[in-house]
Amino acid sequence: MSGRIRLGIAGLGTVGVGVVRIVRREAALLSARTGKEIVISAVSARTRDKDRGVPLTGYDWEDDPVTLATRDDVDVFVELMGGSDGPAKAATEAALKAGKDVVTANKAMLAVHGQALAELAEGNGRVIRYEAAVAGGIPVVKSLIEGLAGNAITRVMGVMNGTCNYILTRMESAGLPYDAVFEEANQLGFLEADPELDVGGIDAGHKLALLASAAFGTQVAFDAMELEGIGRLTIEDIRAAGDMGYRIKLLGVARMTGRGLEQRMAPCLVPMTSPLGQLEGGTNMVVLEGDTVEQIVLRGPGAGEGPTASAVLADICDIARGVRLPVFGQPASTLAAATPARSVTPAAYYLRMTLQDKPGALAKIAAVLGEAGISINRMRQYDHEGEHAPVLIVTHRTGRDALDRALSAMERTGVVKSSPVAIRIEEV
Amino acid sequence: MSGRIRLGIAGLGTVGVGVVRIVRREAALLSARTGKEIVISAVSARTRDKDRGVPLTGYDWEDDPVTLATRDDVDVFVELMGGSDGPAKAATEAALKAGKDVVTANKAMLAVHGQALAELAEGNGRVIRYEAAVAGGIPVVKSLIEGLAGNAITRVMGVMNGTCNYILTRMESAGLPYDAVFEEANQLGFLEADPELDVGGIDAGHKLALLASAAFGTQVAFDAMELEGIGRLTIEDIRAAGDMGYRIKLLGVARMTGRGLEQRMAPCLVPMTSPLGQLEGGTNMVVLEGDTVEQIVLRGPGAGEGPTASAVLADICDIARGVRLPVFGQPASTLAAATPARSVTPAAYYLRMTLQDKPGALAKIAAVLGEAGISINRMRQYDHEGEHAPVLIVTHRTGRDALDRALSAMERTGVVKSSPVAIRIEEV
Repeated sequence: MSGRIRLGIAGLGTVGVGVVRIVRREAALLSARTGKEIVISAVSARTRDKDRGVPLTGYDWEDDPVTLATRDDVDVFVELMGGSDGPAKAATEAALKAGKDVVTANKAMLAVHGQALAELAEGNGRVIRYEAAVAGGIPVVKSLIEGLAGNAITRVMGVMNGTCNYILTRMESAGLPYDAVFEEANQLGFLEADPELDVGGIDAGHKLALLASAAFGTQVAFDAMELEGIGRLTIEDIRAAGDMGYRIKLLGVARMTGRGLEQRMAPCLVPMTSPLGQLEGGTNMVVLEGDTVEQIVLRGPGAGEGPTASAVLADICDIARGVRLPVFGQPASTLAAATPARSVTPAAYYLRMTLQDKPGALAKIAAVLGEAGISINRMRQYDHEGEHAPVLIVTHRTGRDALDRALSAMERTGVVKSSPVAIRIEEV
Repeated sequence: MSGRIRLGIAGLGTVGVGVVRIVRREAALLSARTGKEIVISAVSARTRDKDRGVPLTGYDWEDDPVTLATRDDVDVFVELMGGSDGPAKAATEAALKAGKDVVTANKAMLAVHGQALAELAEGNGRVIRYEAAVAGGIPVVKSLIEGLAGNAITRVMGVMNGTCNYILTRMESAGLPYDAVFEEANQLGFLEADPELDVGGIDAGHKLALLASAAFGTQVAFDAMELEGIGRLTIEDIRAAGDMGYRIKLLGVARMTGRGLEQRMAPCLVPMTSPLGQLEGGTNMVVLEGDTVEQIVLRGPGAGEGPTASAVLADICDIARGVRLPVFGQPASTLAAATPARSVTPAAYYLRMTLQDKPGALAKIAAVLGEAGISINRMRQYDHEGEHAPVLIVTHRTGRDALDRALSAMERTGVVKSSPVAIRIEEV
């Protein structure tokens, strides 16, 4: 490689355009920092004739991203098309086989094919960098793989989907139900073409799966993740949680336990006064915990042209500076297959239910919890009209199995109006 | 260099012992991640016969750190002695000249001699890494130099002295005066041997100077920093600031302005609801702002055996993985001499004064501010007994020059009891 790093950029949406913009505007800065000239050889996108607000006439155009990825004058293939399969994967594979390094923002592709792609890259002496795939502009992959390299990582947590956090924040502040805020977010263009990627937790789950692999030295195991979206959260739960001093977040948590790798992307209660509890709107936050560093919290914009392009450029600069690390921090061939463990770490739970307002109803619920070995930390019964009484319970730490037994037993008591809502409280 | 990285560790205080502990405990993990065996060849400290709680018998002992630094069986000299000059500097120079890389936690040495040492290192093809020198376990040097490499950095801010933040937090929560909490902190062993390094803002200033150099491509210019400690802060100011919705922090701020490099480590007001405002106790926080990434906030333990040793190990792992970057992100020979600019960026200010309680006193103050072109955002006069009335003023944004003129003019009015307190309010 000469004194230049030549990019081939596939995908000219918001992020692609942002990358072109930075490469043009910051040429002198990038060259001072990397000792290399960073130039764009060619670009590719679905439609050629479209004003993207940035001049592209100096770059060759390729209709086919695979052709782009394998051009002789491309050193680094920048994949910003998205999608777990299709052209993104085909072009990434072609680039690696042709001896190109790859920088991508594609969490879906790496969450599904990360192990195979990492093996392909490392077999060819190439790197795949994906800082932009996780938590936008926050340098979290770097902080985890490099900054905490001296730690046995104990837990990785994160709020990593800005749209979900926007929806939950807005429900709380405006007192609006989920459907109304979902519609608002849709109108504002905050949602992916398939909204389930956002609100179903899939997008955030992809990100967590990548971090878990890097944290624990395991093969990416997105399929083994416990995944639950925010679509069933109600304004009642947001208010009730607030009343108990908590906020509800779509929180990813990954832990290596004695029984295997626990990965969960699901609504969780966190203390309102904690950094995670205070996170509002589209901002992302990742918490990294290690045996020696204790806890590091990283906060920043999780999406958008600038922040995501900033992460893409960081990866490009690393390549220009000769930083070459295995995709997941240690060689892909040495990553262990993850043994999935579902919710083995005990936690306190928030329970909300509506009881029939008759003598002994609450006693029956308390008895059921007691029989399952679950003790009650706090309980509130709210003022009500009519024959149904809203009740909130915060339990002490318990296993998920015991909780599930108790929830089933509650339904059999005949005193609960409908299935109780149970949400995990993560200790942060 | 073979498949081993051989360390020579000088300084076996808390951090040095922490490094030895991690190298022993995490040998397998470190080797999986770096592809190298990380071993300790020799150690050095002031006193040999002392139980440090970790076995040292497997390592050669050197009384002289210079001898340690230049041993044939040392690849990386780990400097954990401290002090800007003396043995730390002598041994670092000797190591670099002998072709060793250097990892250090020594902010004082780099703040004073950073440019010369970086030139020496780079002239010899060596690296100096200092993640542990800034904000303990937080990977802030890495985030700035590598993670935000695609950004023109616009501002760097930080609370980077845990002792000062502990003192300020404790004054507020316990309602105690500075002297009492200082004494407490001293009893608890939180203070440096020379407490002025902590409470005078010098230690935090050293850290900010290093970040500013990496952020703006300028030679380290600690001498040009505006420096003010926390010793003159009163419980009255902490309370009054709180009453206006602010907290007082020893905040470092570095900015490149049209008139030069602004670096200030001084007490500042920040909104109580901001991440900086909510930072309590010994925790550190660094805020990095760039033209594309917007704002990244990093939070974590700023000191202590584990966190600081974690940062030292990250640097060692980077060296083992072949990551070799210029000390301040671009070659030392290309760093520009900084043109110091003192407080050129306008800011709002908090003013606290005691006025004589007679007709027209407040009008005179308001007139003085108006004549200096400073407008008042909020003003409170407090209930009082006797003839002196406490008054708080929050100004709109103004230049420091105008403020200084107004402060002098206020004293000449004859209605202020003593010199008004003025503290900058940093927009965060």
